[in-house]
This record gives sequence, structure tokens and C-alpha cells, in this order.
Amino acid sequence: MKKRSRFLQVPIEPFTVDPELKADEILEKMERISFQGRSLGVAHRVWQKMLGDDVTIFMGMAGALSAGGLRMVVAYLIEHRYIDCLVSTGANLYHDLHETRGRHHYLGSARANDAALAEDRIDRVYDTYASEEEFCDNDVWIGDFVTTLEERPYTSREFLNLLGNHLWKETRQEGILTAASRAGVPIFCPAIADSSIGMGLSQGRHKKRGSGHIDIIGDIVESANLVIRRPRTATIVLGGGTPKNFINQASVQAEFFSSAVGGHKYAVQIVTDVPHFGGASGSTLEEAQSWGKLATDAAQVTVHADATIALPILVTALARSSSALAKKRSRPDFDPSRREMVIDGAAISCETFEETE
Amino acid sequence: MKKRSRFLQVPIEPFTVDPELKADEILEKMERISFQGRSLGVAHRVWQKMLGDDVTIFMGMAGALSAGGLRMVVAYLIEHRYIDCLVSTGANLYHDLHETRGRHHYLGSARANDAALAEDRIDRVYDTYASEEEFCDNDVWIGDFVTTLEERPYTSREFLNLLGNHLWKETRQEGILTAASRAGVPIFCPAIADSSIGMGLSQGRHKKRGSGHIDIIGDIVESANLVIRRPRTATIVLGGGTPKNFINQASVQAEFFSSAVGGHKYAVQIVTDVPHFGGASGSTLEEAQSWGKLATDAAQVTVHADATIALPILVTALARSSSALAKKRSRPDFDPSRREMVIDGAAISCETFEETE
Amino acid sequence: MKKRSRFLQVPIEPFTVDPELKADEILEKMERISFQGRSLGVAHRVWQKMLGDDVTIFMGMAGALSAGGLRMVVAYLIEHRYIDCLVSTGANLYHDLHETRGRHHYLGSARANDAALAEDRIDRVYDTYASEEEFCDNDVWIGDFVTTLEERPYTSREFLNLLGNHLWKETRQEGILTAASRAGVPIFCPAIADSSIGMGLSQGRHKKRGSGHIDIIGDIVESANLVIRRPRTATIVLGGGTPKNFINQASVQAEFFSSAVGGHKYAVQIVTDVPHFGGASGSTLEEAQSWGKLATDAAQVTVHADATIALPILVTALARSSSALAKKRSRPDFDPSRREMVIDGAAISCETFEETE
Amino acid sequence: MKKRSRFLQVPIEPFTVDPELKADEILEKMERISFQGRSLGVAHRVWQKMLGDDVTIFMGMAGALSAGGLRMVVAYLIEHRYIDCLVSTGANLYHDLHETRGRHHYLGSARANDAALAEDRIDRVYDTYASEEEFCDNDVWIGDFVTTLEERPYTSREFLNLLGNHLWKETRQEGILTAASRAGVPIFCPAIADSSIGMGLSQGRHKKRGSGHIDIIGDIVESANLVIRRPRTATIVLGGGTPKNFINQASVQAEFFSSAVGGHKYAVQIVTDVPHFGGASGSTLEEAQSWGKLATDAAQVTVHADATIALPILVTALARSSSALAKKRSRPDFDPSRREMVIDGAAISCETFEETE
Repeated sequence: MKKRSRFLQVPIEPFTVDPELKADEILEKMERISFQGRSLGVAHRVWQKMLGDDVTIFMGMAGALSAGGLRMVVAYLIEHRYIDCLVSTGANLYHDLHETRGRHHYLGSARANDAALAEDRIDRVYDTYASEEEFCDNDVWIGDFVTTLEERPYTSREFLNLLGNHLWKETRQEGILTAASRAGVPIFCPAIADSSIGMGLSQGRHKKRGSGHIDIIGDIVESANLVIRRPRTATIVLGGGTPKNFINQASVQAEFFSSAVGGHKYAVQIVTDVPHFGGASGSTLEEAQSWGKLATDAAQVTVHADATIALPILVTALARSSSALAKKRSRPDFDPSRREMVIDGAAISCETFEETE
Repeated sequence: MKKRSRFLQVPIEPFTVDPELKADEILEKMERISFQGRSLGVAHRVWQKMLGDDVTIFMGMAGALSAGGLRMVVAYLIEHRYIDCLVSTGANLYHDLHETRGRHHYLGSARANDAALAEDRIDRVYDTYASEEEFCDNDVWIGDFVTTLEERPYTSREFLNLLGNHLWKETRQEGILTAASRAGVPIFCPAIADSSIGMGLSQGRHKKRGSGHIDIIGDIVESANLVIRRPRTATIVLGGGTPKNFINQASVQAEFFSSAVGGHKYAVQIVTDVPHFGGASGSTLEEAQSWGKLATDAAQVTVHADATIALPILVTALARSSSALAKKRSRPDFDPSRREMVIDGAAISCETFEETE
Repeated sequence: MKKRSRFLQVPIEPFTVDPELKADEILEKMERISFQGRSLGVAHRVWQKMLGDDVTIFMGMAGALSAGGLRMVVAYLIEHRYIDCLVSTGANLYHDLHETRGRHHYLGSARANDAALAEDRIDRVYDTYASEEEFCDNDVWIGDFVTTLEERPYTSREFLNLLGNHLWKETRQEGILTAASRAGVPIFCPAIADSSIGMGLSQGRHKKRGSGHIDIIGDIVESANLVIRRPRTATIVLGGGTPKNFINQASVQAEFFSSAVGGHKYAVQIVTDVPHFGGASGSTLEEAQSWGKLATDAAQVTVHADATIALPILVTALARSSSALAKKRSRPDFDPSRREMVIDGAAISCETFEETE
Repeated sequence: MKKRSRFLQVPIEPFTVDPELKADEILEKMERISFQGRSLGVAHRVWQKMLGDDVTIFMGMAGALSAGGLRMVVAYLIEHRYIDCLVSTGANLYHDLHETRGRHHYLGSARANDAALAEDRIDRVYDTYASEEEFCDNDVWIGDFVTTLEERPYTSREFLNLLGNHLWKETRQEGILTAASRAGVPIFCPAIADSSIGMGLSQGRHKKRGSGHIDIIGDIVESANLVIRRPRTATIVLGGGTPKNFINQASVQAEFFSSAVGGHKYAVQIVTDVPHFGGASGSTLEEAQSWGKLATDAAQVTVHADATIALPILVTALARSSSALAKKRSRPDFDPSRREMVIDGAAISCETFEETE
């Protein structure tokens, strides 16, 4: 009898409908279908592996996910320590702050009359609206907070931790910033200047000369030292952008100073960009291996999907399949509230890279 | 006190994580977030409305969905009459037949060595493999069946019904073709010449001169008559392609002959193409209104997502939220096994359009 | 001195601005940059190679290219025999016929009010408008022509040749259909049932029972025999869809009957779809090699771009760089006006595949 | 006689092939076709309008355009003042510096074996390679330069001007950084921390404690003051990302302090992202109007295309059609070499916003 090709090993199992399935059960079945459905199933599996291993889990977050209704999903991941360190765009933190302060974003239409919206001072993000007036009030609120700080540079990580604390004191409301401050999860925001958080900082400086200094080069040093101190890492990327690259850069930079660093051991990216235009947001995880950003034997998967579809399902599934794993996992112990961040009891510098031999 | 803008009515409700949620509960919460997550939630809602109304529900199916593991989801929709009429590419029917005949598609890699696959005669569809030899055997099987038919033109609808019956007799296995034949759901395949079903037909003709005639112009007449007879319609499109347009064309063509036809009352499309390159697959449902394909007051939604992610979740949700609706709905009664299709007890022509006043 | 890596061979040469450059000179410089710019430059080079070799050049055409202003570019390619055989969607032929008959498509807006357009009976294709009334008149015109034909099945190739002749006699205007009829370039339209050409055919049948039979299975046999007779082939694909697959299918089908057939020797595809959703339109040329659609050593390139950008530049460039090549090339001599198409003086069947040893 | 619809005004003019056409002639003809071809033609027209008006022209640049062979095109735009102010990602400036220092990027393959590349320490950007060793040498070179600066914060604009000067002194080679320093065109890099320029800065600090401070909040104040001083602006965006938003933010921030600011008067964006996932990179220019980023009567166009295709053609065309316009245009006179940037002879602050009445 004829030998089967070595390429034909595991059959596709057509997805069968069962109305009572829960999210994790759906994703487990999707591992055996094709295309991006399979990728989403594999993402669930790879994240579980991260939780069962001793790795520091970075999450990068770009795109209008907070305005778009995913901020409490990210807060959940922080509180239950499915992730250890968040790298975000400023906009996601700003829209989180907006809602934590009791305001809202609103259901809108992608085919709106933008001139009419402009007349009413309504800002549109695709199918979502917000009040510009309320946004201006946030800017003032951030600016006022900025004037209470010392006249010295703050890393974005230190600043955002203080901002989260201040927000918690004032609101006692859950959200990304408040959850991170309370859970000791550091947040980096390398492109903070390109956001309304940055605008608030600039208004603080306008009020009080010499204030509003963010030391984003310190963030580079600190994030690399974090990896040097804990060289086994994993990355979960939502939407590409500066967070995706910043996480990879921390690994590459750390590798210059420590031979123990060998690229992320696990990687999940949920992106809508494509590789063939050469931009970093859409670049493949394979490409990341050429740079040493990702270990060549890493467990990794790219899901080409909108995070507003993929994340609610993926995190609902994880919450059911992996809560025990998340509770007992070996996770780093951070104190991001100090000028020098403390990792597992010892401070790291934002001035000099830690050299190891 | 200041009046709120009329644009700020319904707040976004951030998705909160609950591990025990079932698919319909997840999608109901997603209606209150943004972007494509919201769209998927709305698709669930619009489909429910279709089931509660007295409309003929067309489904269009393009892309490698059968090879990719969704054939039993479509079979479920047919069996439980969440849809009334399927328009498909030939490939989806062929890959369905392949598995119904007991063969498989296999998990593969999108970064395969295609020269090595070619040596082993393995055909690749992105991350999915199949045996070319088994495919050739299907072609022979189809060709042999074709030679048993009369020497006259068959609409694709009649041919596919007979093919499904033959397949059921031989295999007693569930699948799209067999479910449709058994449930009396007609399948149209306007581009059957561009598929391996077409190749099988051509091999039948090679074996027996004069066989293998498919009357795809008859399909146009018949599908328009179907709409003329039941002018209230809905459309669910997976992936664009010829099925999307053929369904719309039936409505446009019917409108020439019957003033009762006014475009689809409901429309859901799950597509990955975009509108700005002008192709029909990515065209918006708004654009369809200019043509009269869609009623200008239709309940409609486009979901920009891979069907291998969207469909398993959407149909799992529907199966739980709407099985009662599906059971008691007013649905058309078809007999697609005759040369002239019978609709609600009366035959329609594939030669002349039915004129009404 | 240290050895350079084998991977670093040919440097990128930054594109330098020269206002006097012509299209071919621009594309030649673009071969030395990156991403899709390079791909477009390579497409120009690969097409030149086709013209210099003894191959039958197929072109596939999907997407609204005729409505969108590219019909005279395609007519130019036909007239000057940069291509030998066209496979098209019906819509592209229909919109060509519309303009050849002296009507127009119009500049419009992608953000139009579609309800207002519907009231005026204006059909929209993204940013382009047309009069529905004029379209209906075309349908009648096609239907009337159909009633003049014999009551027998016509391959789409034979029918379209006759339609082009009729159109030329009536209008004496250049276009795709008229150019192809005059130049002896066959046009196949496997999905003719999914287009307004198909609607015209159905209206012909409505007028005269028994007319309007298109034998699209005959097209499969004939296109495969074309490849069997001339086994060295090349393919240029615009926009994917049924034409892309039909051209590949001809090659795969031919291979069953002739060992001389080994897949396309050259391939250029200009597409906007992506591979990762599994659809055939976006599938890679590498994947095509696993199926034997494309020779594993083929010169091939995929350009991810809208054809309305890529094609005007590419064909303007070719017209300057390669007109001598196009004039003196070894090209097939077709007579597509007969019931049995004549290739290099001998007829081929649309009933049985030609078997060779 | 029947009245034509008001929607049918200007017919599409099918593109006709003329081998001798130059780039501007091609683009002028493309204004009369459809889809993205038309958009590219309109982009040429809108840019011409900018040059003929008295506006400050911002350009944003994201994606791997410098590595990909477009750095000399951007340098040309700077030297000939088709633009007045550049906002860039750090990577584009870094890859520019790499080549200005005499190194290269190399033609590579998108289907490379990344593990093999990693072994050779070759970094891949889609189809383009570079030597990691040479990159490390750049980092050292930047770090050494950083240690020569004063121990105070520098805006990214001041730092990049000094870096460009230093690079010119050492190399006398053209490029983006050197052209900008010589032409007095300011460059902002709000996300400098997320790039190898940032890594070089961090290595400077590692060498000399207290160095490497970039005041990106100062960039916000300064860029807004630039708009307040010259409230009529235009924007050209390549690829979205932080530059796109930073340019819009400058306008929004300026509006808080000056009623003369009313959003960009002209806007061209060449992007590959799409709007429907909610991210800022793909957001429409219409949406920008709701925020006041763009005047509601602005002349604007979005081109959905890879910049490596669109930019060489567009700038070649502009260089021919508009060099006289560019020479005689009213353009701002900047001195970006001072700690406080000088605009038309007067310094602006990076500490406080300029308030006007």
C-alpha cells in the first residue's frame, strides 16, 4: 500500500455547532480549522503556555482600543496578572482616564456628517463619538496634576504610575491606569508626546515653567534593564505601532549587555496590518527572528483580526481555561512607584545599562 | 444647564470579562463596543431579525471556507433552515464533497516549501494541505456521475441537487451538498466552470460526448423568478466573490419584472476586502442601495473579518439565541430536485421571467 | 578582513528624482528599491521576458477596471499583442460595451448619498457613477443580439467574439470586445452568469425561448486544449477573482492529458487581496507552485497595488521599452470566430481533451 | 428631452497609452479615471495647490521608507522646499543616517530563512536586508555624538538639527538629516524613544551620566507655537503612525490658544491602513474634520497605496510640473539650529504656548 506524504499528518476537523459551548471550548475547536480562525485558537494555546512558564509577559497596545470598549478587558489582564508590563500609546491611556473620570464614549456612525459633528464639537473615531469639551477638561485636569510634580524628568513609567494613583484617589474607579498602579504593573508610553496625555503635560508646563519633563530615553534604559534582570520574556501585541517595536527594542537592547537574553520565548500578535508594505506594525514574527527580537524556536502566532473581535473572545476564554495558571504562575514582583523601578526587591537604573557577564 | 449634543446618546459599555459567558451573551455585549467587534454583535442581531420576519434568506459563500473547516457550520445552517438558498463558489462545494467522501484536508503551514509539496503532489491553500491524488479521484467520481445524466442542459441548481442526492446515497454522510439535497435548499453555482466541480463536468463530457451541459443562464432566470415569487429577501454574504453579486443580481433582475421587489430587506456581509479599490467583493452595502440591490431602509451590517473567526462564533451564538425562531419561522418551501424548481407548490421557469403587474 | 555575509549582495539604490524620466525609466529604477515599488519594477521586467520568449500570454481581469478607466489600456494590450488570450469577469466586458456604445461612466464621490443616487437611478461603483437607464438599454441591446444567434450552446469564447464583431459593425469604436474580435484574441468569461452580460443573455432567452445557452464547460475543455496545443504559457493577473483561477485551472487540467505541460513559465499578479484569509484572489504565486499551476522555477512577481495605479504606469512603460519585442514575438495565431477555435491553423475541440503521449 | 441627473457631470476618460508620457502627464490623465489611480492624480493636483498658496507644509513619514529606497526623494522635497517641516519616525532617520554614513541596505527576499539570517546577523525588513554589525556601529557613533552635547534637555527638533550638522561635517553626503540641517527644515521625532536613534541616545547616557535627554513635551509646545505663528497649514502624510497624529495634534493644540488656527487647508495622505479598525493610521480625512484637525472645506485626498509605488511617481511628476511654483512660493523661514527655534526672524518658545487674541 502507498505511503502517505509526510505533509498529511493532522486532519482539519470541521467546526461543529454546539450552542452551549463557552469561549475556551470554541477556541479549542478552532485550533483544528484553518486560516485566522486557527490562529486565534493557537493564540489561546500560546498564551496558556506563557502563563505556565516563568516569563515576564509584556503587552503592547495600539489602536483606539480604550475608546472602542476594551479598557476593562485590559484592566482585567492587569489585575489578574495575565500580563506583567504594559506598553501603550498615549491615546489608549487617555481614553481610559476619560472613562475612569466618569465620562463616556458613545455609539456613533462611521458614515457621519463630520461637518455637523464639528459644529457640535463632537470628535469621531470611526463609529464612536466623544465630547471635545470633556476632552479639554481632561487636559486641564492632567495639566493641573503635572504642576504638582517635582521639577525633574520622570520616566513615562514613573509618571503614569503616579497619574494612576492620583486617578484612583480621586475616583476609586477601575480602569487600565488605576489597575496598573494598584497591581504594581508598570506602563511605558514611549510615544507619550503624540497623544492627549502629552498635550496635558504640555499644558502643565505652560502653567508652571519647568514642569512636564518626560524622560523617554530613561524608559529605554529601564525597559532594557528589566529584560536584563529577567531575561525570559514573552510578548502579546495588539495592533502594532510604537508599543510593538518598543517591546522588541527592549529585548534587542538588553542583548547588547547580557548574553542571557535571547529574544522572546513566546509571541502573540493580533494585527490588521500586513507585512508586504514593509511597515513594522504588520511585520511578521519570522522577520523578528532575524533581528533576534524573538527566539528562533519561540512558540508564536500572528492573528490577522480586529482586536475588538479577537480580544473579548480570547480573554473570556483565558479567564475560564487559565485562571488557576494565572494565580500560581511565577511572576515578577515590580514596584513601579519609585523613581528607580524595583524588580524582585532590587532597584534598576534608568541611567546606565546593567552589564552582566 | 447645557444641552447635550444630539450625537451623544448611547454610551459605549466597556466589555467586562466573565469566563462563563456563552457565544450569544458575548455577542450581545459586543453590540455596545466599537469597530468590527460591534459589527459582529450587530450581525447577530440582524440575522435574528431575518429569522423573525417573513423573508427568503440567501447565503453567499466564497473563499476557501469548506477546506478551512466551516462546511459543517454551513450544513447546520441549511439543516436548521437559518438560510433558504445557498449561492456558492464551486471550490466550496468540491471541498465539501471531498470530505463527505471520507477524505480530509490537513493542518499545514503558510510558510511551507512549495516545491517540496509539489514533489509530494500536495496542494496548499494557505495553511491547509490536501492530496492531489485524492482530488483527481474526486474528479473521476464526478465525471462518472455526469455520464449518468440525460443529454440536456441542467441548471447548476438542478445538477447540484442531483449530485447531493447521489453523494448521500453513496456515503450517508452529512455535509453541505447532502444537507441541501435532503433539506430542499437550492444551491446555485454561477461560476461552476471555474472550479474542480467544473473540471469533473468537463471530464464527464470527455468520457461521453454531449454530456456535462450546465445552463447557467437558466440559473439567472430561475433565481430572479424565485425573488419575483417571494419578493421579500435577505442576504448573508461570506467573503464576496461571484455569490455576493449573483444574489444581488437576482434582486435587480427581478425588479425589472415585478414592482413588488424592492431590494433585500436585511443584509449581513462578512468580508475581508475593502471598498476603495472598486471591486464588488469589498463594496459597501450603502453602494448596493444606489443599485436597488438593497432597500434603502434595510437593516444591514458589514463585518470586516475572516469568516473562520466570525462564523463559528456567530453561528454558535445564533444556535443558542434563535433556535426557537428558526423552528417557527415562515420559510419558503422549495423542491429543487425537479427540472423546474417548485416554490411553495408551484413550479417556476428557467426559460422566461415571470411578469407580474 | 572580514567576509561579508552571502545575504548582502546587491545594495538598495535610493530612488533619485529626475523630472524628465519616462515611465519605463522610472520602473527600471524602482527595481532597486524595496517593497511594492520594487515589485512593480520587477513586473515590468518579467513581462518583458514573456515577450521575448515563445509563450502564450494569458491575462485575467477582475475588479471594476473597465468602469474605472482602464479599458483602453487593455484594448492596447490586445491590439499590440502584449497578451494573447483574455479571461475576464462579465462586468468588465459589459462596462466596456457600455462605453463602446457611446455612453459613459462618470466621476463621482465615494461618500455619496446613495439614497439620493437611487432616486435618480444612478448606480455607484465606489467613486464612479453610471445611469441605470443606459444600463437597461444595453441589456435590451444584448438580448436582441442573442435572439439572432442559432439555438445551440455557444462557448463564452465564441459568443464574445460574435458580440465583439457585432459591436464593431455597429459602432466602429475601439474597446476591449471590439479589439479582441479584430485581433483574433479569444476572450473567456467563465462567470458570465454573474454579470450584466449574463442578464442580457437571460433577456434574450426571455424573448426567444431556447436562446441564450452558454457552454461554460466547453470553455474548460477548450482552454485546456489551448494549453495542450501550446504548453508554454504565462499569466498576468489583475485583481484575482474567477479569471485568476480559470487560467490556472486550464494549466492544471491540461497537465492531466499532456506531460509537456508544466505550469506557467512566467507570472505577474497585481492584486489587493492578501493571502492570510485563504481566498484564491489573494493567494501567493508560491502556493500556486504546490498545485503545479506555476512552474517551480518560474519568473514571477506579485504586486500588491490597485490596478488603477499600477496598470497605466506599467503599460506606458512597456509600450516604450518593449514595442519592438511585442512586434517580433512568436505569438500564437488564433481564430476565435469559429465554433471550434482554430490555433495555428488547426481546430481544437470543446468536447474532448486532446491526449498526447 | 429628458434632463440628465445632476450626478452625471464629468465623464471618466479611459486612460490611453502613450509611451512618451512623463510622470506629470500620466498623473494628469489619471485624474479622470477611478479608484486609487484617480486619488494619486488628485494628490498631485492638491500638492500643486499647496505650493501655489501661502501655507506651511508639514510632511509626516512612517513605515520603512528610508530603508526601502525613498530617502533621496524626501531629501529632494526638503532641498527644493516642497515641504517645510518634517515629522518622522526614528527608524526613517536612522536608516537615512546609516546610508549617509556610507553603508547600505540590500535587496533581499520576503521569504527568507530568518534563522539563517539571524546566524549571519542580518536584519530583515520584508524584502530588504542590513548588517546588524553596521547598525551597532551607528549606535556607538550616535552615542559618542550624544556625549558631546550639553547636559540639558534638547527638543527632538534641536537634537536632530545638530545631528544632521554633525553628519554633514563628517560625511558631506546628502540625505534627509543632512538636507534638513542645511535647508533649515525642522524635523520633529515625537516617538524617538521607539527607534535606534533612541537606542543611540540611551547608549550616550550610559557612557556619560546625565546626557541623552530629549524633551518631547517641548516638541509639543514648539510645534503648536509654529502653527500659532503661521496658522495656515497643509499636511502630507506617508504611512500614518505617530507623525500623522503629531501634525494634527499641533493644529488642535494651537487652536486652543489662537482663533486664527482653523485646521489644515490642504491634506494628502498616502496610506495602506484602512479606517474600519479604528486606528489613527488608517483614519479618514473626513474624520479629521470632526476634530478640527482639517478645515471642513479643505482640499484633501487619501491615496490607498504603498508609498514605494506612489512617491517616486508623484515626486517625479511634481518636479516637472511644479518646480517654478516651488521656487517662488511663499515659504516660512526657519532657523531650527537654536535652542529656541526661529521662525521668520523671531524665536518661539518650547516652554509656553503663545497666546493671541
